[in-house]
Amino acid sequence: MTADTIVAVDTRINARWLIPIEPANTVLDHQALLIQGDRIAAIVSQDEADRQYRARETIDLPHHVLMPGLINMHGHAAMSLFRGLADDLPLMTWLNDHIWPAEGQFVSADFIADGTALAIAEMLRTGTTTFSDMYFFPEVAATVAHDTGIRAQLCFPLIEMPTLWGSGPDDYLAKGEALIRQWQGNPWIMPAIGPHAPYTVTDESLARAVQLSGDLGARIQLHLHETAFEVTDAVEKTGQRPLDRIADLGLLTSMTQCVHMTQISDSDLETLSGSGAHIIHCPESNLKLASGLCPVEDLSKLGLNVAIGTDGAASNNNLDLFGEINTAAMLAKVVSGDAAALSAHRALAMATINGARALGREHELGSLAAGKLADVIAIDLSDPFVQPVYDPASHLVYSNHGRQVSHSWIGGVPQVQEGRLTRVDVPDLMLRVQAWAEQIRSAQSN
Amino acid sequence: MTADTIVAVDTRINARWLIPIEPANTVLDHQALLIQGDRIAAIVSQDEADRQYRARETIDLPHHVLMPGLINMHGHAAMSLFRGLADDLPLMTWLNDHIWPAEGQFVSADFIADGTALAIAEMLRTGTTTFSDMYFFPEVAATVAHDTGIRAQLCFPLIEMPTLWGSGPDDYLAKGEALIRQWQGNPWIMPAIGPHAPYTVTDESLARAVQLSGDLGARIQLHLHETAFEVTDAVEKTGQRPLDRIADLGLLTSMTQCVHMTQISDSDLETLSGSGAHIIHCPESNLKLASGLCPVEDLSKLGLNVAIGTDGAASNNNLDLFGEINTAAMLAKVVSGDAAALSAHRALAMATINGARALGREHELGSLAAGKLADVIAIDLSDPFVQPVYDPASHLVYSNHGRQVSHSWIGGVPQVQEGRLTRVDVPDLMLRVQAWAEQIRSAQSN
Repeated sequence: MTADTIVAVDTRINARWLIPIEPANTVLDHQALLIQGDRIAAIVSQDEADRQYRARETIDLPHHVLMPGLINMHGHAAMSLFRGLADDLPLMTWLNDHIWPAEGQFVSADFIADGTALAIAEMLRTGTTTFSDMYFFPEVAATVAHDTGIRAQLCFPLIEMPTLWGSGPDDYLAKGEALIRQWQGNPWIMPAIGPHAPYTVTDESLARAVQLSGDLGARIQLHLHETAFEVTDAVEKTGQRPLDRIADLGLLTSMTQCVHMTQISDSDLETLSGSGAHIIHCPESNLKLASGLCPVEDLSKLGLNVAIGTDGAASNNNLDLFGEINTAAMLAKVVSGDAAALSAHRALAMATINGARALGREHELGSLAAGKLADVIAIDLSDPFVQPVYDPASHLVYSNHGRQVSHSWIGGVPQVQEGRLTRVDVPDLMLRVQAWAEQIRSAQSN
Repeated sequence: MTADTIVAVDTRINARWLIPIEPANTVLDHQALLIQGDRIAAIVSQDEADRQYRARETIDLPHHVLMPGLINMHGHAAMSLFRGLADDLPLMTWLNDHIWPAEGQFVSADFIADGTALAIAEMLRTGTTTFSDMYFFPEVAATVAHDTGIRAQLCFPLIEMPTLWGSGPDDYLAKGEALIRQWQGNPWIMPAIGPHAPYTVTDESLARAVQLSGDLGARIQLHLHETAFEVTDAVEKTGQRPLDRIADLGLLTSMTQCVHMTQISDSDLETLSGSGAHIIHCPESNLKLASGLCPVEDLSKLGLNVAIGTDGAASNNNLDLFGEINTAAMLAKVVSGDAAALSAHRALAMATINGARALGREHELGSLAAGKLADVIAIDLSDPFVQPVYDPASHLVYSNHGRQVSHSWIGGVPQVQEGRLTRVDVPDLMLRVQAWAEQIRSAQSN
């Protein structure tokens, strides 16, 4: 071997285990992952890395799993400031008496900036490297995400009523179009269209969303079939299931991400089949709000892509996607009556490559492979209190929690190192969060 | 005030919040909990504590909740050594091809000692101060628990077939009676009778269990109505539901703890009503093994006492009871179709005072009150990534995990201090655990 076969790279990570996600059901031992710029240069054995690469920086992770960063496909980031404000309440009491009044009183550009920063901090700390958001002032959230260096799909809200962010559909669509044009093609920020739900958006506005999506190539995310009431109420009023109406309006395509989907009939399965639409499963929110159970296995068997999201911290009440993966894997078994349903490996794929597919970025996100973007996390499995480790994939899903994430990189940039955030001033963030909490707390006690 | 009004105590704990569990739905601010010997001497405001008490030791917990230690009412402790050995498999494949062969090859007194120590370490670290165990060599597990200083109910196994622990029912009952006589009246170790399940124990053996319980005042714990197959198979073979058979044999009393109970008909509710029998809910095991959903709210509304357990780490795969509380609270909502079901406060009561009731020790365990045993845990709510905290009870159930437990005392003896175990040699334990894991791993790959 001659000197010119040595390749210089930025970073070399030596890991005890590596789960690439693709190919499926694979755990590799003693690998070196090499990063050059924002991409993975190679994944090779540590011996081969010694022979072929020289890195400016080498990180040894002898008790760790390396895997692609997690993709949290649904949430309302800034609602983290309302975490645990009101729980254990029927959905409409929760919304009418607590969340909507609090939003009306507090939501502003500043609130969104601080709340989104809090959510991003929690997500980074627990292994998320890409998230989807649907909330007011998406242009503010986009800037916060971009400046922190996390990837984000920002779905601008589209709803018939006026809100703090705008006067109605015309205003939302105009602001949304500007958001899309501002960020289109940016590798971090993915602007998208967020019609709230079939029952809050008219046919006309939904048609305009489809038009905008077609014109600018932006994806659509909407809450769909979240509760039994949503479906029965629509059928009573219009004679049509919401999913059928969405399909008729041209929304049911590979550009659309359908969130929740707890109420799925056989006819719904037929409507969904072959549509290419993506399902976003939010199991903890569905449990906690008593919405229902998404038939993940039935949907997957149809060939539909099922990704996963935490939903907002006000209804979950945390953004630890490892907890959500755990709940999804356990719940799918009882829902399908099969203890072999949604294996650990498949649950991890749901939170990585399936999220990338929903975003249309599976060619560069969601798995570890040479040439893909270097969105990588490491999880330390040396915690004494959950030994032994026979199967790292099982451990990640059934024995782990997000705090075991020790490192993450997004596009090659370190975001978490030894469990500490590198690009967030946590004490300063806490001061801002506590100031909001004081205000919200005093408003509640009035 | 004169000097003789000052009372000397061992320990004073100043806590930001205190959740006594009884009275229900109560969060107290800025309390001092005073410990003298193995008992709680008083719970008073910090001002009053300054005036009335002098403590040899004062511990300030300015961001913490104090609450009673958790009571994990069902598990198979030593199976922690099989954690994640085989997952995502149908129940009978899991048992026949993995767990039973591994047990046959490895279970011994030494295995039980090390496996139980591992389970106790995880439970202590995550806030459990009392646990119930049902596994082989209960006399070994009793000694390990006693020497560590955790409270434990040890249910000796009663089953028709020979096992590594004994030759059959006569042998088990003889060894079990000796266990009961050895520990009876001990404040830490509660010997009990553990008939495996209706389908593995004959009427005769169950009758002998009832007799032994009556003679020596020992409680009975059994797996009951865990799966639909258990019930339909019994009905086919005997014409009787297992619960009815258990009732006919005189087992359905306040001395009995029924574990799982996922298959509950209206007639079962009638049978249970007024029986005084205790239900032990193991939600994560029921999900992961696709067993079914326990109707916790229906059972509670009948006035039945519902406590909670993790089940063994081989089928969960962790012993973090805070995770189990979270799952129980979320799951009860969707099972009962009511987002107000099993509130955070009630879920915490399930894991404390309800466990104490199942053990018949609610007069001295399961809540914080003067005169009760000082089994106390502190949870640090200052973690920046799950701020803000509006309601500590909500936070403990929906945003917390067991690693936030910072302190625990059992009978006034410190067990966890600043997140570290005080009475377990963790590095030494890890050496023993890794040695077992090596053996088990090589047996699996053969």
